[in-house]
Amino acid sequence: MDFQSEMYVELVRHSASDFDVAAAARVSTIGANGLDLNLPTEGLINFLMRDRHGSPFEHTSFTFYVEAPIFVAREFFRHRAGWSYNEESGRYKELAPVFYVPADGRPLRQVGKPGAYQYKLGTYKQAMVVSGDIRRISTEAYETYKRLLDLDVAREVARMVLPVNIYTSFYATCNARSLMHFLSLRTKRDNAAFPSFPQKEIEMVADQMENELKETMPQTYAAFDKHGRVAP
Amino acid sequence: MDFQSEMYVELVRHSASDFDVAAAARVSTIGANGLDLNLPTEGLINFLMRDRHGSPFEHTSFTFYVEAPIFVAREFFRHRAGWSYNEESGRYKELAPVFYVPADGRPLRQVGKPGAYQYKLGTYKQAMVVSGDIRRISTEAYETYKRLLDLDVAREVARMVLPVNIYTSFYATCNARSLMHFLSLRTKRDNAAFPSFPQKEIEMVADQMENELKETMPQTYAAFDKHGRVAP
Amino acid sequence: MDFQSEMYVELVRHSASDFDVAAAARVSTIGANGLDLNLPTEGLINFLMRDRHGSPFEHTSFTFYVEAPIFVAREFFRHRAGWSYNEESGRYKELAPVFYVPADGRPLRQVGKPGAYQYKLGTYKQAMVVSGDIRRISTEAYETYKRLLDLDVAREVARMVLPVNIYTSFYATCNARSLMHFLSLRTKRDNAAFPSFPQKEIEMVADQMENELKETMPQTYAAFDKHGRVAP
Amino acid sequence: MDFQSEMYVELVRHSASDFDVAAAARVSTIGANGLDLNLPTEGLINFLMRDRHGSPFEHTSFTFYVEAPIFVAREFFRHRAGWSYNEESGRYKELAPVFYVPADGRPLRQVGKPGAYQYKLGTYKQAMVVSGDIRRISTEAYETYKRLLDLDVAREVARMVLPVNIYTSFYATCNARSLMHFLSLRTKRDNAAFPSFPQKEIEMVADQMENELKETMPQTYAAFDKHGRVAP
Repeated sequence: MDFQSEMYVELVRHSASDFDVAAAARVSTIGANGLDLNLPTEGLINFLMRDRHGSPFEHTSFTFYVEAPIFVAREFFRHRAGWSYNEESGRYKELAPVFYVPADGRPLRQVGKPGAYQYKLGTYKQAMVVSGDIRRISTEAYETYKRLLDLDVAREVARMVLPVNIYTSFYATCNARSLMHFLSLRTKRDNAAFPSFPQKEIEMVADQMENELKETMPQTYAAFDKHGRVAP
Repeated sequence: MDFQSEMYVELVRHSASDFDVAAAARVSTIGANGLDLNLPTEGLINFLMRDRHGSPFEHTSFTFYVEAPIFVAREFFRHRAGWSYNEESGRYKELAPVFYVPADGRPLRQVGKPGAYQYKLGTYKQAMVVSGDIRRISTEAYETYKRLLDLDVAREVARMVLPVNIYTSFYATCNARSLMHFLSLRTKRDNAAFPSFPQKEIEMVADQMENELKETMPQTYAAFDKHGRVAP
Repeated sequence: MDFQSEMYVELVRHSASDFDVAAAARVSTIGANGLDLNLPTEGLINFLMRDRHGSPFEHTSFTFYVEAPIFVAREFFRHRAGWSYNEESGRYKELAPVFYVPADGRPLRQVGKPGAYQYKLGTYKQAMVVSGDIRRISTEAYETYKRLLDLDVAREVARMVLPVNIYTSFYATCNARSLMHFLSLRTKRDNAAFPSFPQKEIEMVADQMENELKETMPQTYAAFDKHGRVAP
Repeated sequence: MDFQSEMYVELVRHSASDFDVAAAARVSTIGANGLDLNLPTEGLINFLMRDRHGSPFEHTSFTFYVEAPIFVAREFFRHRAGWSYNEESGRYKELAPVFYVPADGRPLRQVGKPGAYQYKLGTYKQAMVVSGDIRRISTEAYETYKRLLDLDVAREVARMVLPVNIYTSFYATCNARSLMHFLSLRTKRDNAAFPSFPQKEIEMVADQMENELKETMPQTYAAFDKHGRVAP
């Protein structure tokens, strides 16, 4: 049994740059013929972000490989527009015994009402029980899963006993616009125009994706962060 | 603890008829002004389906309310184009102790390779172990979930121990074209042009949705079934 | 030859109400079983709009029939997410001689730069020339079109001479979320959070669609208008 | 005045290979960890295409720059799912005097009924009149356009007189799945499973895009062409 507290995110492949955004935007006002490749892009990208002209950001592509628990994948896959997915299948392969358990310091209590939760650290007792119970149930469930497989029960039936903290893996492909929309909902930042209350575990995925955006499209990222973190 | 072996599907609301399809198609050749409301629709719908003119089928809307286990919801939500969802949240509400357990007669073995599985009934022993293990793990997991909640652990943390056979509920809205695409992948029929190997449990959902399509749009349904069950 | 200065918009069919939005949102926190049908909806809809929870607005459907010039249809069809279209075809039917000409009072001059145009009324001379030239070119083009058809030239070839102010007609189906996104870009209002600079003619279409939203979903519309006219 | 009979298509940028498809598909059965990079891909891609497993083809990206007449762009932009666009704007820039005129040999007559047209070469007289009329109307319209601009009429008003054979330019970004769907409808081939009746001019665009798919993803292309040219 393998218990992990991290999310794995890898940018497998991308075709995305600030220049691509500016070139797509300029086709509407200048045309592509005779486009001066040395024109500055930063001001234009800021303007597009501020006034919410989103389509120029779509001519880009990011493919991520992600390993995360099922309860995170379930939130992730709710993002439909501009996203493509392929995921590990519990029908087609035997799932590995890798389960998520919260790290020390993961807030365990929430106060307030849905949509406006505040999070508090757990007590020592809470931390012990959470960690112990998750490990115990995960282990029992996986042993049961293996026993059913050994009895030649179909994988798609045996997996019904597995808890939602088991890790799954998937490819996710998006463009810069759909990525920013994801980040606007799955990260929590003080400078955001709209409140968002992501669960900690999907935020751990989103933070890594945000770093990749920042590195590949620094001007786009800076404009996104400056203008309220709202996808254009 | 409540163990169920059925899926619940209710057509909450719809705006969909064969006439709508024909009217949308005829705008391209006749126009809408002076459209004769008594023109026959069956031949036109057959032609559209056969030659895969899909867009006229999109001017329709179905809203379903579904109760199904998480592992079914996960397959369901992979359908993105033309679908909208709202689902019960394990972060915002306490989940009820309702779990799926296969009914007698649900094949428990699969032979062959991924993408071409064949299913066989289980042995008596397999049936006993599957039923017993699923009930046992579900019960232990739910008791643990409740204990964590009683300890004031956040719902979003406590739910990590719950298995994927716990029931969830959601609204799903689609149009006739996206519905037929769903049916082409999530039902298994001898008269289909392309093989599909849906898991039994999502097929139980799809079969009920197919009945609703048949009732609300009989000509569309007949054409779909006749022309290989491929969405146009 | 028929010259018109109006857009025709008809809400052909819809399945949309404020109650639908609230019911879809409440499945996440309350569930659908035992949902009290008399719960108030206005506060919830305001909260969803303000904090940009968009998905509950998608379980609704509007089908519009529109008659507008080609240059308007071209802008309209750029809206892809959540929209379906069927349009009159210049390949399949003979187009009728109906052309758009600006009404008196349509601003004819623009000053400033792209993305921030300001509009001014035209001079008397400008108004005369615009009206005269549009009528003259439309008439010549249509006569040429007819002559080519009389010579048994294919419709799809003959139509190449027709100007973009000729009327076309189409069905457009959307949900309340995609409709609000359209309105946020295709209307110009002082209370909007983001500037938009729609061309007058598509705004004439959007204004009529806005009235239909207001009538069918008054609470949703009020919240949209109150919270900066940004689609959630 | 510039009259052209060609379409311009350039693959500006892409991130797409047969390997990407196979890797995305294998995450479901093998997982990505320990994926043998030397596994063959051709058989798997053939299987995916034949049985219509479409999602693995979506983790790819193609950005095309296209110059084509407005009547072609209008058909092109009807493709919504998996497509992103940015187009030259007649509101924001002065359009150049470049117009489409059919080349010698472009069939000018069609017989049969909509959806099943057959095309015939034109007579000498038809060819003369078509060519002459298109040049004449295009020239008159453009001169009128320029005159209106010289009178300080807004570009968005002046352009109303321009015919649909004037060239526009745009960026179009898609993935391999949406590209194949486009090709299935916008090319005409004897080995296709479903009939399609594209207008010649959009087929000229599609043929160039097909060459790019063939070059960048030869196994995917071969499988598409072999299995009835239906997008999976």
